[in-house]
Amino acid sequence: MSELEVVAESRCFDGRQITYKHRSAACACTMRFAVFLPPAAERGRVPAVYWLSGLTCTEENFSVKAGAQRYAAELGIALVIPDTSPRGVNIPGEDAQIDIGTGAGFYVNATQIPWAAHYKMYDYVRDELVAVVNQSLPIDPSRKSISGHSMGGHGALLIGTRNPEDYRSVSAFAPIAAASKSEWGQPALTAYLGADRTRWLDYDVSAVIRKQPSHHELLIDQGMADPFLERLRPADLKDACREAGQKLKYRERPGYDHGYYFVSTFIAEHLQFHAAALR
Amino acid sequence: MSELEVVAESRCFDGRQITYKHRSAACACTMRFAVFLPPAAERGRVPAVYWLSGLTCTEENFSVKAGAQRYAAELGIALVIPDTSPRGVNIPGEDAQIDIGTGAGFYVNATQIPWAAHYKMYDYVRDELVAVVNQSLPIDPSRKSISGHSMGGHGALLIGTRNPEDYRSVSAFAPIAAASKSEWGQPALTAYLGADRTRWLDYDVSAVIRKQPSHHELLIDQGMADPFLERLRPADLKDACREAGQKLKYRERPGYDHGYYFVSTFIAEHLQFHAAALR
Repeated sequence: MSELEVVAESRCFDGRQITYKHRSAACACTMRFAVFLPPAAERGRVPAVYWLSGLTCTEENFSVKAGAQRYAAELGIALVIPDTSPRGVNIPGEDAQIDIGTGAGFYVNATQIPWAAHYKMYDYVRDELVAVVNQSLPIDPSRKSISGHSMGGHGALLIGTRNPEDYRSVSAFAPIAAASKSEWGQPALTAYLGADRTRWLDYDVSAVIRKQPSHHELLIDQGMADPFLERLRPADLKDACREAGQKLKYRERPGYDHGYYFVSTFIAEHLQFHAAALR
Repeated sequence: MSELEVVAESRCFDGRQITYKHRSAACACTMRFAVFLPPAAERGRVPAVYWLSGLTCTEENFSVKAGAQRYAAELGIALVIPDTSPRGVNIPGEDAQIDIGTGAGFYVNATQIPWAAHYKMYDYVRDELVAVVNQSLPIDPSRKSISGHSMGGHGALLIGTRNPEDYRSVSAFAPIAAASKSEWGQPALTAYLGADRTRWLDYDVSAVIRKQPSHHELLIDQGMADPFLERLRPADLKDACREAGQKLKYRERPGYDHGYYFVSTFIAEHLQFHAAALR
């Protein structure tokens, strides 16, 4: 396994906020991720919440904007925050659209040329990043949860629901709830998986839940002033959960939009939800 | 007085995070500022903490990175966050250096051509912005405090100490503590005020305190892993306060650097300090 290299480190709430880079085998490029280690990590291994970010984000957005470190420090949980795609892999057009390529990995394993050579974010987040973190950092391999926002909410629900034994708890903020039916999702799934839409269903959270609900109670917050409700398709997810018997705690938040002012307002409740499951 | 125009608004901690723009008479250009109104502002006028930001910042940095809204919502105080300089006023070289011009107003009233036509941030922050805010927003004109970071810490100490009756309390994070002696300060003061250094002393916090200490107890947090300690010159300020009898609560924070991870860690304590004075 390749070495972790520290890109930046700052003290924060008596813990450590660190940006790492490393050579990823899954993505065949250098990947960055951020970690917050709470003060408790100086005394022993701590559980971790993996956070998946949305379109255009890097590992920095959540780190800087969510105000999550305060709660993670109090609760004694680490935060692990990957980037949202490979970067700089010289695929033609990788920077041309916000919803395909750089910043738009969609947490899938691409099968189509040229993306398949690098865009393996599903494997990267589920397997390689976890292995790297568990090997190199004071994190308890047996206790992890997953959350995310928008495209990253899709990623968290997807990876958490398809691998329910790997995660103690699963939550999301304003997730893309049915990627195969969304304007945010269809261009990427076409590029990464090809035109055969039946192949998209393994990466559509609502379709996955209809096929195989998990034992988790999913926690989702959704702002009701979110300008992207049509693209997020929360009704598809609610229908799927109801029909498949998937437990869901879905909270509508009047007046809140899609941004990090919304996430920062409710991140404490999500981290408390995960901390309870990680105890 | 010119109208306020809303540039953006988001719900945040059940309050309102709003970016405004308006025509500034002091700066003879359009200026932006951000405001957080706590939930209590829906029921009546609330006190305000003015926050002055550092070099290169806009009104957005503190709004997005400090995690202050949570505490301001709890404490029932508004946050008023001006930009750090005029922008786009077409002064040759205004964007050429990070420490002169755009993003580097240094909270002075420039007297030198060409800067004097626009760079009146001292008057803007002390008078015009306050008048605009008091006229247009549910803020109590009789209760305000001031704080800031780095160049903005200099600004907060400067304006608070020179106008002690206008502010209930004054604090700073890692302030430029002696602008006339600092690599951060000398280029700007030369440009804005001219080569005669005696004119700089009205805008050097340590010199101001030596001449006229205020009745406030100044609260300052300083990270001890701050890479800019030589430019910030905290010893000058401590000496000035001791010799002039200025009350100072100066807290060294081991391991913390100069950035917003440091500010976010201690902003709660500063807002509690101000809230106590604003009650």
